[in-house]
Amino acid sequence: MKFERKDILGISELSVNEINLILETAESFLEISTREIKKVPTLRGKTVINLFFEASTRTRTSFEIAGKRLSADTINISASTSSVVKGETLIDTARNLEAMNPDVIVIRHSAAGAPHLLATLVKQSIINAGDGAHEHPTQALLDMMTIKEKKGKIAGLKIAIIGDITHSRVARSNIYGLTKMGAEVVLAGPSTMLPRDIEQMGVKAYTKLEDAIPDADVVMMLRIQLERQKQNIFPSLREYSQRYCLHSRNITLARKDAIVMHPGPINRGVEISPDIADDSSRSVILDQVNKGVAVRMALLYLLTGGNE
Amino acid sequence: MKFERKDILGISELSVNEINLILETAESFLEISTREIKKVPTLRGKTVINLFFEASTRTRTSFEIAGKRLSADTINISASTSSVVKGETLIDTARNLEAMNPDVIVIRHSAAGAPHLLATLVKQSIINAGDGAHEHPTQALLDMMTIKEKKGKIAGLKIAIIGDITHSRVARSNIYGLTKMGAEVVLAGPSTMLPRDIEQMGVKAYTKLEDAIPDADVVMMLRIQLERQKQNIFPSLREYSQRYCLHSRNITLARKDAIVMHPGPINRGVEISPDIADDSSRSVILDQVNKGVAVRMALLYLLTGGNE
Amino acid sequence: MKFERKDILGISELSVNEINLILETAESFLEISTREIKKVPTLRGKTVINLFFEASTRTRTSFEIAGKRLSADTINISASTSSVVKGETLIDTARNLEAMNPDVIVIRHSAAGAPHLLATLVKQSIINAGDGAHEHPTQALLDMMTIKEKKGKIAGLKIAIIGDITHSRVARSNIYGLTKMGAEVVLAGPSTMLPRDIEQMGVKAYTKLEDAIPDADVVMMLRIQLERQKQNIFPSLREYSQRYCLHSRNITLARKDAIVMHPGPINRGVEISPDIADDSSRSVILDQVNKGVAVRMALLYLLTGGNE
Repeated sequence: MKFERKDILGISELSVNEINLILETAESFLEISTREIKKVPTLRGKTVINLFFEASTRTRTSFEIAGKRLSADTINISASTSSVVKGETLIDTARNLEAMNPDVIVIRHSAAGAPHLLATLVKQSIINAGDGAHEHPTQALLDMMTIKEKKGKIAGLKIAIIGDITHSRVARSNIYGLTKMGAEVVLAGPSTMLPRDIEQMGVKAYTKLEDAIPDADVVMMLRIQLERQKQNIFPSLREYSQRYCLHSRNITLARKDAIVMHPGPINRGVEISPDIADDSSRSVILDQVNKGVAVRMALLYLLTGGNE
Repeated sequence: MKFERKDILGISELSVNEINLILETAESFLEISTREIKKVPTLRGKTVINLFFEASTRTRTSFEIAGKRLSADTINISASTSSVVKGETLIDTARNLEAMNPDVIVIRHSAAGAPHLLATLVKQSIINAGDGAHEHPTQALLDMMTIKEKKGKIAGLKIAIIGDITHSRVARSNIYGLTKMGAEVVLAGPSTMLPRDIEQMGVKAYTKLEDAIPDADVVMMLRIQLERQKQNIFPSLREYSQRYCLHSRNITLARKDAIVMHPGPINRGVEISPDIADDSSRSVILDQVNKGVAVRMALLYLLTGGNE
Repeated sequence: MKFERKDILGISELSVNEINLILETAESFLEISTREIKKVPTLRGKTVINLFFEASTRTRTSFEIAGKRLSADTINISASTSSVVKGETLIDTARNLEAMNPDVIVIRHSAAGAPHLLATLVKQSIINAGDGAHEHPTQALLDMMTIKEKKGKIAGLKIAIIGDITHSRVARSNIYGLTKMGAEVVLAGPSTMLPRDIEQMGVKAYTKLEDAIPDADVVMMLRIQLERQKQNIFPSLREYSQRYCLHSRNITLARKDAIVMHPGPINRGVEISPDIADDSSRSVILDQVNKGVAVRMALLYLLTGGNE
């Protein structure tokens, strides 16, 4: 199957066949990062720009490593050093970068839709590395890759996503992807953190964690964005963690072989207790990070015409 | 012709022959950025340091891409992360970098003359990527390359440069270069933004845009440095744009086939109206950016002895 | 001799044989940085992460150049752009990086012991690029390499270290290394800057510069950390420099052929007078920087199994 897309903007527009192609390609790339010489010449002479308007260690580093292991030239631009401080519009920034002939622009932006705008304006491939509270497709793809590896499948699994659903691009992309792949997705979070019409996305939503995780095969905890909690969505952090923190007692409601996921960075003791986060029999949090490099290698490869 | 210079500090000291050699070399590099594999081994094993004491997206990125497409190792140092915060002098910074054996140091600095000081102190090649309000030679070279491509020549053209001439290193470098190459250069800007003795540089200066652009082949708009307008040089931005913004009415004073240039980033509606900036029949703003990579590749190549 | 260590955390744990192996390996790498093509394929396909929680020009740049000249892929992460701003613990950051399969993580951190903690947690090699006031092993190694080259030996030399001993990781690493290698180390600094039990490290300590430098073969001046002098350790900078600045008069107390060292960046006129810093017959400050690249190349090479 040929990959026909110019951009990766969200999971919402990907077909099941496309998701499967990406995951299979990523699986074939996983081994490269375990070699003595972790580098293949596939993208030699291609230019990948990481354009980050929000701080990020892991996503930017993951894309940079993915690009370099494929021998691409990688360029990092972060908002703090960019001409954004000079008031240039996103559109002008994009067109300027386009004129330097990159092959792929990876963008993270606080505004939902920013990558989509770029994609209509420039001829290069755009990868959405997170846009506001909208989508974070590479995170959902690495989550699906991790689930598939650990559980052998996605279809038919019960997957609970717990936390601030409203503000989570991770949740949104995973809901699109997991339901598409045939999983049963249930959510839990404070009512102030559950979008009103969320059940129209084909999921069930609860305000109690204990209602969502019974018999779950996968428990995916979301990050509370402490740095954004200036507007008090919930009364206090302590109250949140009393009701929504995953720990050694409530985890017993899930299936015995349930895996625990988190997109990181973890607020230990807020959304997940340290013993659960570090329990290697359950926690697949670092597997997620590991799959992230392979997923991003796969996308860079597919978007630059690798499988033609 | 062999290129004999150690450094590129300003257009003022370049001869017509040197400018022509740089432009011809850049033209031969233009094609590399359009290849499937945008990379040649010319500068393999060379080290290029981008030492930026002022924020920049496009110039830094342009140099970094230029270096990488020539297979150089590129190192970015920005003021905010550098030991400048520890109070080290520019001289000590330069000598320390010298001791690590780079081949080229690209420097942007808010102080006029900083690159020249460096050039006398270190044995490596220095490229001035903008020093205060003094010179920005790579910008002028890419501007001349763009004009030459669009108009077939530079000599004999009438070129109007509009805006804050006093504070513009772009204006200064272009005045040196364009007059040297035989163009007629006319300026317009508020009297507070016109250096007193500017006509000694071989140009005419007006306080009205309408006096400068009649019959111009090229209209080059300068950027108003909004971020530096704490000292009120002009009464208000609105008043400035009423008198000096290029738009669909005053552009008709120029030649029908006149091209419009801007060094970016654009303040849309301040120095240029959006319809003119985006009019692909006139605006060559993105061509300028595109030529920038080729010009910088040419300079890196020539300074490291490429054409010997 | 095979190099058996996983990490380079401090000079305190290195044996004389290990130090000699590192210095000899570094000497063999010195020549690469003087070649026309300054690059060897030794670390092709290896990933080196520079994880800097403190600002640094020279150390970060030195490691980055060292990695690139060995053809490693180098990734820079600085605290200001990292997810540290999201409150992630150092441990989680490290484990996340580990999951992306780097080969070496170079870390600078304001907390003493941070690199040691990392080393116990992740399987990759850790290099300490400075941890609080504890150790800065690569600085001491490049200092020893410089002394060995200039003096032909280390054993038997008298080496004076002057300044703020208490807060200096450079002093601590050098005391460990130089005494191990058989040098006589004497210290001088204000009593508030001399650790109480420092003589138990096998050195002599004085409060007067004039007591420490007589007959010294090497005078090593430490940097006063102006940016950290909010708590007044000494009455005034002027008083400090009157008593502890190395200048053309007190240097005559040292041996005629004594060399002068400084880890940089220099506060000219505070700890060393400009004429001494720039006296090429005595000052080896830029040699130190030059050796720094070679020492870091040697460590990257040895830690990735280069000499097996």
